[in-house]
Amino acid sequence: MSEILRQHIGKFVEISEEEFAAVLPYFRTAEIRKKENLLTEGQICKSNYFVLKGCLRKFFINKKGVEQTTEFAIETWWITDNISFEHQTKSEFYIQAVEPSTILIIDHDSQEKLLLQHPKMERYFRFIYQRAYAAAQMRIKYLFDYSKEEFYHSFNSSYPDFVQRIPQYLLASFLGFTPEYLSELRNKNRS
Amino acid sequence: MSEILRQHIGKFVEISEEEFAAVLPYFRTAEIRKKENLLTEGQICKSNYFVLKGCLRKFFINKKGVEQTTEFAIETWWITDNISFEHQTKSEFYIQAVEPSTILIIDHDSQEKLLLQHPKMERYFRFIYQRAYAAAQMRIKYLFDYSKEEFYHSFNSSYPDFVQRIPQYLLASFLGFTPEYLSELRNKNRS
Repeated sequence: MSEILRQHIGKFVEISEEEFAAVLPYFRTAEIRKKENLLTEGQICKSNYFVLKGCLRKFFINKKGVEQTTEFAIETWWITDNISFEHQTKSEFYIQAVEPSTILIIDHDSQEKLLLQHPKMERYFRFIYQRAYAAAQMRIKYLFDYSKEEFYHSFNSSYPDFVQRIPQYLLASFLGFTPEYLSELRNKNRS
Repeated sequence: MSEILRQHIGKFVEISEEEFAAVLPYFRTAEIRKKENLLTEGQICKSNYFVLKGCLRKFFINKKGVEQTTEFAIETWWITDNISFEHQTKSEFYIQAVEPSTILIIDHDSQEKLLLQHPKMERYFRFIYQRAYAAAQMRIKYLFDYSKEEFYHSFNSSYPDFVQRIPQYLLASFLGFTPEYLSELRNKNRS
């Protein structure tokens, strides 16, 4: 399954079989059970995760004690708590499997070594962070500009398969809804 | 003033005088008047901006026709519309000078060439985007978790000089307040 990572790197930089063979040992593969936590609030986030199959999410426990999902990662997406990962400080987030998942894991120190020894991977990760940053900036724009209903419709038309795939209470959390409000919206659209 | 950029690059990668002399011609310096627009909605964002002196902001016009500030950039901060810049598509944002500013400008094609010819700059920009992404992720967390009043207090204690420096109606816009509400909050804190 590591072929999925090679193809993903290949979208951004040319990488030969030999080069990829040198890159791969920096990663390890893991099978994650549904609802298994990869990171818990208060821990140091030691790793960066690349989804080969399945779905992870990041959330925090808000002041009301409710889980607030801020991010999902499906196939070929990276996920970590970037602040905790870069500075090796305690995390304010959880990272949890939404589905049984197969992932690649790279630890903080391994990623540092990988980037120093393989400049192509520096370029690859520059693209990854640049795009992730751009997406987060648009998310901030939507949080200011869209009503909850508009956000749902926009998300639904951009990612219809994803909206079908994930549990509805998690989608509601990501969109900032109660599950009841999401259910109302869906019924309104069907009628 | 280009020394400011050399020092900033030096925080992330070792760069010699000779290397920096080869990097600098990719940039041009510009003096921007207060309220001058570097980018207007509907334009393609051709450049990435590094602030040497002064302050820029990014905003969009929301559905009510009101300017919503999403980002500021002061000394040593980068600012651009990343989606429009990377894909050379039309922007949904404005970038405008809050103060008379001195900036370095690098165009899209120049940045591409710079990164291909100077792998150290690839590493530098990887750090820039990684940190910017991490900051945007925390911003998203705060937008979900903080009341407007809590967001103001957190921002005020993290960036007291900045809060003093920028016009209060822009700070209000960034925090998602009306100027009147910000004024109320400040009076409450004084009393």
